[in-house]
Amino acid sequence: VDQTPLNHPEPEFATVALVGMGLIGGSLGLALRERCLARRVVAVARRPETVQRTLELGAADEGGSGLEEGVRDADLVVLCTPVLTIPALAERIAPYLKAGALVTDVGSTKAVLAREVPRRLRPDTPFVGGHPMAGSEKTGVEAARADLFEGATYLLTPTSETPADAVERLERWVTALGAVPVRLEPEAHDRAVAGISHLPHVVAAALAAAVAGGSGDGSIDRETLRQLIAGGFRSTTRIAASSPEMWRDICLTNRKALLEALRQFEAELALFAAALEDRDAAELLRAFERAREARMDLVPE
Amino acid sequence: VDQTPLNHPEPEFATVALVGMGLIGGSLGLALRERCLARRVVAVARRPETVQRTLELGAADEGGSGLEEGVRDADLVVLCTPVLTIPALAERIAPYLKAGALVTDVGSTKAVLAREVPRRLRPDTPFVGGHPMAGSEKTGVEAARADLFEGATYLLTPTSETPADAVERLERWVTALGAVPVRLEPEAHDRAVAGISHLPHVVAAALAAAVAGGSGDGSIDRETLRQLIAGGFRSTTRIAASSPEMWRDICLTNRKALLEALRQFEAELALFAAALEDRDAAELLRAFERAREARMDLVPE
Repeated sequence: VDQTPLNHPEPEFATVALVGMGLIGGSLGLALRERCLARRVVAVARRPETVQRTLELGAADEGGSGLEEGVRDADLVVLCTPVLTIPALAERIAPYLKAGALVTDVGSTKAVLAREVPRRLRPDTPFVGGHPMAGSEKTGVEAARADLFEGATYLLTPTSETPADAVERLERWVTALGAVPVRLEPEAHDRAVAGISHLPHVVAAALAAAVAGGSGDGSIDRETLRQLIAGGFRSTTRIAASSPEMWRDICLTNRKALLEALRQFEAELALFAAALEDRDAAELLRAFERAREARMDLVPE
Repeated sequence: VDQTPLNHPEPEFATVALVGMGLIGGSLGLALRERCLARRVVAVARRPETVQRTLELGAADEGGSGLEEGVRDADLVVLCTPVLTIPALAERIAPYLKAGALVTDVGSTKAVLAREVPRRLRPDTPFVGGHPMAGSEKTGVEAARADLFEGATYLLTPTSETPADAVERLERWVTALGAVPVRLEPEAHDRAVAGISHLPHVVAAALAAAVAGGSGDGSIDRETLRQLIAGGFRSTTRIAASSPEMWRDICLTNRKALLEALRQFEAELALFAAALEDRDAAELLRAFERAREARMDLVPE
């Protein structure tokens, strides 16, 4: 039964399977249904409770825990599980996919997947890596929002082997979601997000841990410390509340670029520490000025 | 002429002089006038344009660039200039103050001021250090908001020498502003804010500088990088756009505690880097988990 409203054009992918129902999977489901971008949205989640919550939240038309039943009718399969699980998942779904089905993912690192996923799929089911630059420190399908992708940059990371029409179809689908598709090579993607996403996460995490640990000297009690916390600490450490498992995987799959970014950061931090150690007011001012210019250049608002 | 509306109680301080009209000075002026907490709010700013903007914005009843005229009728003088300028400013206003006038400041470090300010004032014009935990990465009187202090913690840092009634009067005034007064010893204050405020600023600044510098390897152009920037980088580096001069002064006046906090942070960061270097998934997970618990403990929301 065609449930697409009459005033909506034929969807790019009639049946979309979402594998893994967390914040991103759930938000995709809500957005697809709200914008009538699929005739059927099928959710696959390991735990029956998650499937049930997904259906209650209206983030899918149907759902279950079986991979085979979940993906076999899909025109598009979106893998929304942690990065490290994706290659094995691709291998498991490969035999069940329809010929011509397109596979994508929403993982935060792309070079490993560009290498590992296509060779586990059949040649007639192309893979295009994807990475919506939208998220939240909140996790789980409960935090899903239909508008999560609106106006967000949605990176697609095809390689020279990826069929051009698969990329074009996915670009149209991303645009229909309200996001802005941007193509990037998998390696360039990983270097860029090492700096603008992965490094900030590690830094925010180290900062939260350092402040919590450093305040244990007894000079001030925890409750007073909580009262003192103003906007600076709050915003700087916001993302430290993100999923530890997800960030472990991201770091491990983007290890080289992240270590390089960490070294650059440590060098910058050392400039501040040295200026402070030397009571060098002019150098300290220069360092803060350079940082301000950098921030205003990167985030013009 | 008494301009206090009939339905408002006698203000704690009839004439309030605000010296230095930036974000905090301007917001105090707006809040005092909106809440009818003074008969006269007098603004003092070095530049005539700032005085004019202050009056246009309604953040004071009158204003000028002269310190003597600005403070001589004041029952309360609030010094809202950068921390390092405050001792000299106290020395300059000392001869002109009315007997019994109370002097406070809004500087971000307190131990230096607790030592340096009282001995520059007369014994009949007590000093109570103050630090509203409210702010913004925006600067200048243009960014002032009448509600900036609503619900904010407002630290007062008297010493054993400070007259008790001066502290109590200032606590009532802070409460009338809608903020929550909390007493803290100047040294305990400086250690606490080194971790929860000064360290996050330095870290955010180093992060912004590192990402801007690191992206110059030609693999990705600046415009694409801007498109990629999502919430993580945005929130983590928000405060890097703050006033460089202000943060230079804050760092220099809280040098010892900040260096100590920086060392703790560097040690935490080294744990992440080592786990990543060693591909130690278990240790990396533990580090992210510890950070998440720390953040959730310090900012329960």
